[in-house]
Amino acid sequence: MRQRHKPWADDFIRENDNLFITDAAESPKCWQKVFGNDNPIHVEIGAGKGQFIRGMAEKYPDINFVGMEVAKSVIVTAGQKVLASDRTNIRLLLGDASLISKMFRENEVAVIYLNFSDPWPKNRHEKRRLTYRSFLQQYETILSPSGKIVMKTDNSGLFAYSLVSFSQYGMKLEEVSLDLHAEDDPENVQTEYEEKFSAKGQPIYRCQAAFDSKNIQK
Amino acid sequence: MRQRHKPWADDFIRENDNLFITDAAESPKCWQKVFGNDNPIHVEIGAGKGQFIRGMAEKYPDINFVGMEVAKSVIVTAGQKVLASDRTNIRLLLGDASLISKMFRENEVAVIYLNFSDPWPKNRHEKRRLTYRSFLQQYETILSPSGKIVMKTDNSGLFAYSLVSFSQYGMKLEEVSLDLHAEDDPENVQTEYEEKFSAKGQPIYRCQAAFDSKNIQK
Repeated sequence: MRQRHKPWADDFIRENDNLFITDAAESPKCWQKVFGNDNPIHVEIGAGKGQFIRGMAEKYPDINFVGMEVAKSVIVTAGQKVLASDRTNIRLLLGDASLISKMFRENEVAVIYLNFSDPWPKNRHEKRRLTYRSFLQQYETILSPSGKIVMKTDNSGLFAYSLVSFSQYGMKLEEVSLDLHAEDDPENVQTEYEEKFSAKGQPIYRCQAAFDSKNIQK
Repeated sequence: MRQRHKPWADDFIRENDNLFITDAAESPKCWQKVFGNDNPIHVEIGAGKGQFIRGMAEKYPDINFVGMEVAKSVIVTAGQKVLASDRTNIRLLLGDASLISKMFRENEVAVIYLNFSDPWPKNRHEKRRLTYRSFLQQYETILSPSGKIVMKTDNSGLFAYSLVSFSQYGMKLEEVSLDLHAEDDPENVQTEYEEKFSAKGQPIYRCQAAFDSKNIQK
């Protein structure tokens, strides 16, 4: 994503500390306290400019949504839009996905969304893919026993890799679509990227997977 | 596949009873005896006119290939071509896939190929899909503990369904490709359908899956 330097970003984040969470990795949040209720928590990794998380928060007011994004100059755009929408069931988490298990407590999260993640196509960058084994370990920790990972991407290489990675880790695939938009799912909330790519006629892949072992053991 | 009535089919099959196996469901074969050696046995379900099985048999002379096909008028065309090719590591099995576990002994098969199977797109026909649970149970029985299912199709609905069915059954995905021909795999042997579909620019999906539980238990 194109990132412009935004000299006002730090001030904006500081002024809106009820929306932005910046220190979760150092001192883990009590997310129930953050939201002021015990509704289920859904986390989008790589929330970008926030279109998906805003759409979801509007559609599901009884779910708390955390949009995680590593780029400060991007998350502030999401923040401006969230503030304009007046929704109280969204928080924006500035941070790196590789630290996610420090930012949530064990079993705290109901759903993790991976939307149009960086495909890191080179083999030597495999460990950076958000569906690499070490990430799955962290997701498993923070997801509840009935928790899910829901992934969307237009990248066939990343999608194929992720299906194998989920399966080899011992996860079970619950749903797979190889052309989400052809199925015309009225429940689908689109990301910015998704609108752009699908307008070009490219298929959008989607899957939902669960940690089967977690269901059995706990 | 278009099927013409071939009045000579019965005679042709009878005359070439060293190539065609027609009674496997009634009296299970000893496939080692059929081939006269103990090389690994690979089975293609829905061999059609036999292009894939002939290509594979030529490429891998130390593997025994069984091409299974339910349509008599189609299998005789495969038979004519196999006879012309002079290969001894192919047999053609006339029969219905729903009886496959009666046609092979437990653990006898190393690989099952599902190539461009009928997608049976309607929900009420789910049980007829060759990757429905009841078929997987039969494949599990006849496959060796290290055995694999290798599937190719151009049908995104059947492929997505099958990935979930494999996973829900407890199988592990070992390889997935969402555009096999873009990867330009020199090892890929094409079927008749595959040549036709991929020439139109349609992606070919491929996956390889194994019965994980079988590996653990045995």
